[in-house]
Amino acid sequence: MEKFIPVNMSNRHIHVSQEHVELLFGEGHKLTLMKDLSQPGQFACDEKVDIIGPKSTIKGVRILGPVRPQTQLEVSIFDARTLGIDPVVRPSGNIVNTPGCTIVGPKGQVVIGEGVIVAARHIHLHTTDGEKFGLKDKDIVKVRVGNERATVFEKVVVRVHDTFALDMHIDIEEGNAAGIKNGDTGEIIREEV
Amino acid sequence: MEKFIPVNMSNRHIHVSQEHVELLFGEGHKLTLMKDLSQPGQFACDEKVDIIGPKSTIKGVRILGPVRPQTQLEVSIFDARTLGIDPVVRPSGNIVNTPGCTIVGPKGQVVIGEGVIVAARHIHLHTTDGEKFGLKDKDIVKVRVGNERATVFEKVVVRVHDTFALDMHIDIEEGNAAGIKNGDTGEIIREEV
Repeated sequence: MEKFIPVNMSNRHIHVSQEHVELLFGEGHKLTLMKDLSQPGQFACDEKVDIIGPKSTIKGVRILGPVRPQTQLEVSIFDARTLGIDPVVRPSGNIVNTPGCTIVGPKGQVVIGEGVIVAARHIHLHTTDGEKFGLKDKDIVKVRVGNERATVFEKVVVRVHDTFALDMHIDIEEGNAAGIKNGDTGEIIREEV
Repeated sequence: MEKFIPVNMSNRHIHVSQEHVELLFGEGHKLTLMKDLSQPGQFACDEKVDIIGPKSTIKGVRILGPVRPQTQLEVSIFDARTLGIDPVVRPSGNIVNTPGCTIVGPKGQVVIGEGVIVAARHIHLHTTDGEKFGLKDKDIVKVRVGNERATVFEKVVVRVHDTFALDMHIDIEEGNAAGIKNGDTGEIIREEV
């Protein structure tokens, strides 16, 4: 059974709805592909925005495309505290009752009432990877990463889909805590039942 | 056998030699106690310095007293990258062949050729705690912390001394990776041999 996966760190970023793209960048604006990401169809955009929280502003937060039904800002706990926003750990897409913020673009600004999350650590598996790893969607596993700062991340959510590519996503604080570089290998630890 | 310990996060800080205190703050200057720390005799000072690295400056880094034989700056991996300094994980006091930086005080500045470290995660135990926990100086253990972001830190160095108070020290990135608050409880995990 496979157990090794590449691990990559996400920096702060934002997913935006088409409605919000147009409010921030002007009517009819389409996001501009800068670089493809590891997950098929996902890309980093040229577009950046500033995020205003109750305590401070973080400038130049990159938008990731394509547009989504709901705008969602993903930050580290450190970033959330810097902004003055209560850090709430959530799986991507699950933004009900999370804090909001103000998003500023070159053509306008948007206040979102919810959508600021600290992304929960997770693994993407293609459907065929799911079989190789013996894992199914929504499974929870532990993953050991790092060497000098060896760390076991528990409560890692497994997501399996035929549009996904094999990858574990953690944030920069988690990656630095384990002293890893992007692309380092993690080992899935199975519970001995 | 005891296995629960309080866990606290260290923010960036600097320990300085008396020689460097005087170069930075003026001849004959003595460090000013602002607040006692958890380890007996250790204290946060009123004095702060700016740190200049090849890439940027971090302002207002607090000095911790008392003075030490060698000046040592402790930063997170994020801070080291911000400064443009290669992050080197080391136990406190072990600074041979670590990177240097420039330290700026109100009365002068000092260039150190080495002394910038990312502090290795560690546990302080008083000698009597060592007996209760069944641990001795230089033992290596694993510690589980956190809840929603439960994390096991491996390679945690145990330090036992009759001047120490019971406490685990990790940096802010490690603490945020595990989603903890200062004073949360960690569980020492023993290897099942």
